[in-house]
Amino acid sequence: MVFSSEILPRLNAPYLICGFPGSGYVGKMAVDHLIQELNATHLADIYSTSFPPQVLIRTDGTADLIKNSIYYFENTATNTAPMLLLTGDSQPGNPDSEYILAEEILDIAARFNARQVFTLAAYITGVFVEKPRIFGTATDKDIVQSFREKEISAMDGGSITGMNGIMIGIAKIRGMKGACLLGETSGYVVDARASKSLLEILLSMIGLKVDMTSLEKRAKDTEALIQTIEQQMAGKTGRMLEGQQPGAQNRSSNTGYIS
Amino acid sequence: MVFSSEILPRLNAPYLICGFPGSGYVGKMAVDHLIQELNATHLADIYSTSFPPQVLIRTDGTADLIKNSIYYFENTATNTAPMLLLTGDSQPGNPDSEYILAEEILDIAARFNARQVFTLAAYITGVFVEKPRIFGTATDKDIVQSFREKEISAMDGGSITGMNGIMIGIAKIRGMKGACLLGETSGYVVDARASKSLLEILLSMIGLKVDMTSLEKRAKDTEALIQTIEQQMAGKTGRMLEGQQPGAQNRSSNTGYIS
Amino acid sequence: MVFSSEILPRLNAPYLICGFPGSGYVGKMAVDHLIQELNATHLADIYSTSFPPQVLIRTDGTADLIKNSIYYFENTATNTAPMLLLTGDSQPGNPDSEYILAEEILDIAARFNARQVFTLAAYITGVFVEKPRIFGTATDKDIVQSFREKEISAMDGGSITGMNGIMIGIAKIRGMKGACLLGETSGYVVDARASKSLLEILLSMIGLKVDMTSLEKRAKDTEALIQTIEQQMAGKTGRMLEGQQPGAQNRSSNTGYIS
Amino acid sequence: MVFSSEILPRLNAPYLICGFPGSGYVGKMAVDHLIQELNATHLADIYSTSFPPQVLIRTDGTADLIKNSIYYFENTATNTAPMLLLTGDSQPGNPDSEYILAEEILDIAARFNARQVFTLAAYITGVFVEKPRIFGTATDKDIVQSFREKEISAMDGGSITGMNGIMIGIAKIRGMKGACLLGETSGYVVDARASKSLLEILLSMIGLKVDMTSLEKRAKDTEALIQTIEQQMAGKTGRMLEGQQPGAQNRSSNTGYIS
Repeated sequence: MVFSSEILPRLNAPYLICGFPGSGYVGKMAVDHLIQELNATHLADIYSTSFPPQVLIRTDGTADLIKNSIYYFENTATNTAPMLLLTGDSQPGNPDSEYILAEEILDIAARFNARQVFTLAAYITGVFVEKPRIFGTATDKDIVQSFREKEISAMDGGSITGMNGIMIGIAKIRGMKGACLLGETSGYVVDARASKSLLEILLSMIGLKVDMTSLEKRAKDTEALIQTIEQQMAGKTGRMLEGQQPGAQNRSSNTGYIS
Repeated sequence: MVFSSEILPRLNAPYLICGFPGSGYVGKMAVDHLIQELNATHLADIYSTSFPPQVLIRTDGTADLIKNSIYYFENTATNTAPMLLLTGDSQPGNPDSEYILAEEILDIAARFNARQVFTLAAYITGVFVEKPRIFGTATDKDIVQSFREKEISAMDGGSITGMNGIMIGIAKIRGMKGACLLGETSGYVVDARASKSLLEILLSMIGLKVDMTSLEKRAKDTEALIQTIEQQMAGKTGRMLEGQQPGAQNRSSNTGYIS
Repeated sequence: MVFSSEILPRLNAPYLICGFPGSGYVGKMAVDHLIQELNATHLADIYSTSFPPQVLIRTDGTADLIKNSIYYFENTATNTAPMLLLTGDSQPGNPDSEYILAEEILDIAARFNARQVFTLAAYITGVFVEKPRIFGTATDKDIVQSFREKEISAMDGGSITGMNGIMIGIAKIRGMKGACLLGETSGYVVDARASKSLLEILLSMIGLKVDMTSLEKRAKDTEALIQTIEQQMAGKTGRMLEGQQPGAQNRSSNTGYIS
Repeated sequence: MVFSSEILPRLNAPYLICGFPGSGYVGKMAVDHLIQELNATHLADIYSTSFPPQVLIRTDGTADLIKNSIYYFENTATNTAPMLLLTGDSQPGNPDSEYILAEEILDIAARFNARQVFTLAAYITGVFVEKPRIFGTATDKDIVQSFREKEISAMDGGSITGMNGIMIGIAKIRGMKGACLLGETSGYVVDARASKSLLEILLSMIGLKVDMTSLEKRAKDTEALIQTIEQQMAGKTGRMLEGQQPGAQNRSSNTGYIS
């Protein structure tokens, strides 16, 4: 763990909001948007021997080791709580290391007496929908009860695997509160639309307003991409039907071609 | 490891009875029944970086990290020995961690000077039987000899893999006695019937009586489930025979289709 | 590591002779024969979290954790060097643990100022031979040069993988001498014949005589087994040729049946 | 880590040049050539439990544990910077251990206040080319800018995986500079031609001249090998075309046969 300054900022019981890279980049995109729009300050980089052993090359030709990073934001104008924002290049490569990374991130959060941990995740359904729903689970009943007024569907079974799950599970054992919010997504595309819906709900929960223009633009790109895919799939089905019409002797070869 | 109270109870040389989740949930269901019927007291939760990295979501919407838990029971009315009862959401995900978890559980047992370790396991046969047999192995010859009067078939070869095996193997090295009792099960269903037979034998060994009503009810559900499966399989065989009747020349292709 | 006595024997620069379980049990069978015929004394058991997590059940119904064991033998009658004899139920389940076990075994050998490490291994050829050859490699040139007078074929390339290799490789780094002797075997059967040939060469190198009767008996069993296999294979080839003779139209289905 | 002498040499801010074994042995061959031509002095051997657990057997019959080795070279005649040269039998077998080995090598480099780390790697294209291009990435912009005058193509995206990547990534975190140079190669052959081109560029960057005769000879062998492969592939294509000529109705089945 490498802090960008030896003098740590004083943050009064901040939220810790985690956007780990995962399905559709739903969570990571939301937190990256927050970091950018709030012009959040870099706090620390976290490296791990369990991250994929590689450097990522930037457009300027320089290379950097894969890492997770924490930024912070203090809203001096309003009385909104400050925030720790976690984003990353990768999740750990094995289960043991997920636990260890979660502990390390929560150690940092504990230094600032963080009040609550949010993990932003994807709820994969395999289908494209008009308006993504938001699902949630939490460490405490009062958080679960607050879901209803925010139009979050409280999950009542199953499990949350990976960093998004164990971050709030370990938080609970350490006496912190946590909630995992999941944006509905197909799982097929990088889904800025799900990301935008998820972020809007989160901002409403923590009482903060952020310029959404750039994320809305990406959400429209996602919509356009999904429409293109749906049209191609409809087209394929169309051609497939046409291909099967001409005559019985052609059917098998056409089907073979398509599959 | 998180104890639910800083003041540990005084238990006089208790039995440690382990119901790890495994094939047919034979062992876990037996211990969960004991915990429920005896209204056993929660002693400690054990977390491990080798458990699957996930939280389980309850019906009330709250989430908890995967764990093993130990409860205890003191029979103040009779002079039966007290018990430590272990149940869990999961077994460790790799061999190394199985050894480490076993040591950790035995550390707790050693604090109370546990007299004997029982692990309750499944003996998988791949077939459905009317009355499940109980098999056993132990660390000491006198325990093996006591199997006969309890209608436990002493195993005389092979191995017991996983937590059920190494718990008693490590117990032996640490100077404790151990026995592994295995309930015969098909391996295809959650088998409350095997669980009930196993628990009855165990209770007879430690001289304790417990209300079996709820487990017997589940055992009847298992019986009904097995009968349904057997009828479906018989039906399939019936259809298969019909398919083969029409003529000799069709036989081989039908067989090919079914297999 | 559990020593069977707190007072360790005084051994004057013993040989360490290792029979890890492996292909054809060539090495393990040779060392087990030595332990039995020399009536060697148990020195220590070595347990490892990297051994398969299981207990092995004996014929008397009792169970023991998987382990490696070291015995010792002092030849008070003659002036032959004393010996440490290592045998085991299993090799470690992952590469890292092989290094760690090798270090642990060599730590024990170093307590007695062991003069040389022998590992007994299998040289797998995939074919049955009349008289198994013995191959070898060593840490020092003088040992390699001594191979010629013992009819050991010095290897001049390739590698020795697993415990048999790294035991002598680590011995070299720690300033000890080591040799790996390999008995030629098909790799298809438990090969007491290869084991016997290997042990004879080893005994000749360290100047010791041991009653070989029981191992010779097992070697004859191996010979009988190999002859049975060879006859069956010859028979199969015969039947296959017969099956193809009757007519062209039967050929493909017969071939299909055999393969 | 085993140093060959207790008294370490004094080296004034050397380069660390790494030739890990990898695709086409492009990097390792270049560094091995440097060690041989400069008659570099052995400094240290590095062993790791993550290297494949085996000994390599030399032509004289002796065996050595798999290792990485560091040599050093001081150019007393000219004012060229001294060099640490790393070559190895193997890379670690798992990601975690790659990080740990990289740290260990950089610990040694840090003892000598190394000025810059070079890793020599392969850029795999899947095709044979006349003149291999050299690609590069670095920790600092000034190094990337210097690539242009050396005809190195600066990469502007993607990643470098394995030791060649994380060596410079960790170097950057530790405040050292690093560059990864990659020689274009097909990935199908041990490619001394790519190795020679890569080494020439490196020598030009560090201002050193080395006799290239033996490497040029091996590069010509590579060229001959590639020509043979290309001729064989051309021959195959020729036969394939002939096979398709007989008639239109056979075409599809022929194609099916070939693919």
